[in-house]
Amino acid sequence: MHIMVIGAAGMVGRKLIERVVADGGLKGQPVDRMTLVDVIEPTAPAGYDGQVDTHVADLSADGVAETLAALRPDIIFHLAAIVSGEAEQDLDKGYRINLDGTRNLFDAIRAEGEREDWMPRMVFTSSIAVFGAPFPAQIGDEFHRTPQTSYGAQKAMGELFLNDYSRKGIFDGVGIRLPTICIRPGKPNLAASGFFSNILREPLVGQEAILPVPDTVRHWHASPRSAVGFLIHAATMDTAGLDHRRCLNMPGLSATVAEQIEALRAVAGQKAVDLIKHVPDEKIMKIVDGWARDFAPERAKALGFTAETSFEQIIRVHIEDELGGSL
Amino acid sequence: MHIMVIGAAGMVGRKLIERVVADGGLKGQPVDRMTLVDVIEPTAPAGYDGQVDTHVADLSADGVAETLAALRPDIIFHLAAIVSGEAEQDLDKGYRINLDGTRNLFDAIRAEGEREDWMPRMVFTSSIAVFGAPFPAQIGDEFHRTPQTSYGAQKAMGELFLNDYSRKGIFDGVGIRLPTICIRPGKPNLAASGFFSNILREPLVGQEAILPVPDTVRHWHASPRSAVGFLIHAATMDTAGLDHRRCLNMPGLSATVAEQIEALRAVAGQKAVDLIKHVPDEKIMKIVDGWARDFAPERAKALGFTAETSFEQIIRVHIEDELGGSL
Repeated sequence: MHIMVIGAAGMVGRKLIERVVADGGLKGQPVDRMTLVDVIEPTAPAGYDGQVDTHVADLSADGVAETLAALRPDIIFHLAAIVSGEAEQDLDKGYRINLDGTRNLFDAIRAEGEREDWMPRMVFTSSIAVFGAPFPAQIGDEFHRTPQTSYGAQKAMGELFLNDYSRKGIFDGVGIRLPTICIRPGKPNLAASGFFSNILREPLVGQEAILPVPDTVRHWHASPRSAVGFLIHAATMDTAGLDHRRCLNMPGLSATVAEQIEALRAVAGQKAVDLIKHVPDEKIMKIVDGWARDFAPERAKALGFTAETSFEQIIRVHIEDELGGSL
Repeated sequence: MHIMVIGAAGMVGRKLIERVVADGGLKGQPVDRMTLVDVIEPTAPAGYDGQVDTHVADLSADGVAETLAALRPDIIFHLAAIVSGEAEQDLDKGYRINLDGTRNLFDAIRAEGEREDWMPRMVFTSSIAVFGAPFPAQIGDEFHRTPQTSYGAQKAMGELFLNDYSRKGIFDGVGIRLPTICIRPGKPNLAASGFFSNILREPLVGQEAILPVPDTVRHWHASPRSAVGFLIHAATMDTAGLDHRRCLNMPGLSATVAEQIEALRAVAGQKAVDLIKHVPDEKIMKIVDGWARDFAPERAKALGFTAETSFEQIIRVHIEDELGGSL
């Protein structure tokens, strides 16, 4: 099987590729070829004995999507996107990458399939940013998408394309709306959502972290390992059960910041908790106020998607995957 | 005030223009200039003493949107679209006109407003085709959009653009999801929904009409006069109450075909009803099965949108507006 990962240099893309190598394929199906695409050079995975080709390319540039489609992979993971903050700041760039890039890819697949029969599985990462407040206590599977960022609007448009092109038989699409990924590995960043990871990741290694919101703030989380699990399940599941609704709210864990902190205390003790400094930030509080707090992702669960059920689990995943298994 | 109607040669566009002339403006605000745009030559309205300019133009063609935006109207009615059947048959044309045409218009307004401050009201006609079965008994204001036609997907994308660009302050947008318009004046056409109008319009003038579905079929209707009323209200309402959700399910009347026929009997007698011939058509039945049957458009009602409450009213509107007031 030949898989293509677009956005292969990003955190989730890298973890997906590592997992495919570690598992020797996708749920028992061997992967003998990987095409890795990103705007920065993707790293070829260690310990993989199949064929790997890397492409430094931008889907919104002329001819790129056609070149990729001509490779006719069996499964395409389309993870590439301009993130929320940048899409908000640069309206043109956000629409160019997140909407036009996606549309170019989908249209190139259509043209290639018209040239010679081909219908790849298309796994598209969407986001809970397609939802905008006000929300019900739990967001159900039939709640409307009213994004309050350009990024969310662009992802919602990608979902509509994914559905329509799947309905037309151009590809076999599955869209997954990822929760906020926690604990995000790496350095603290300036994303408004960064603190959800920072307040756990930094104290786990003896560093201070800033909490800019009250600990009553509730949000929707899944680990990087779960995100990779969603992608693999979306790539291999029987899509008959999706009917015409190919985009799914992924399972996750609804937790308050206080519950995150309690889990940190249980795993790493009071000394870790003491490293969290509460420095209120009105601007971040205002942004976070518009975010989804809880979901009832019944369809995804029924279709076999799973995630963590406690924040202690999420922290232990981080310790296993990023810190060598122990503190 | 200067209004621009894009899609001015269509049925709803023509009726809107006639109504503005008859009313001497928009809810008491005089309209001294009209710019009428369509791919076929729009008719300048009779009895209007303001300035009228007509443009034969396609928004998806280079430079058209910029030319129109440079006219800086106060209110833009964007009614232009490739209809459902054609968008389904010709995927490229549907996306080019319904998505790219709309986006060109919105981007041209953005560029013109950046050149010199300007924020027009933008009234965008969407459709209940943004919804796809399965449905609840009544579709509420927070039901998700899962279109099952390319037309519906394109309208849903237009809604997302409308919301995002309004949020960014590029224009002051209102999107209205029109019910099926009944009684549609003119000749019977081949649209799958045509029979809802045909079975009333033709018998009212002594002609036979074909009913291709069982009389238990339920659907969501509003008269052409109500559609024009929605547009005028959308153009003049206070948009503060829309918050970030600028697209609304319009009010309408949920009725079965049997209820339509009873209303015809009440208004025009058994001899009119006898002109309806039941000729079942499996293909049309299958299409109609996927259509919305009933809505609870609470937001639109609270914001002052109104429609007919009985099919007798809908028939009487047709008699007044199309048949000179009597049978």
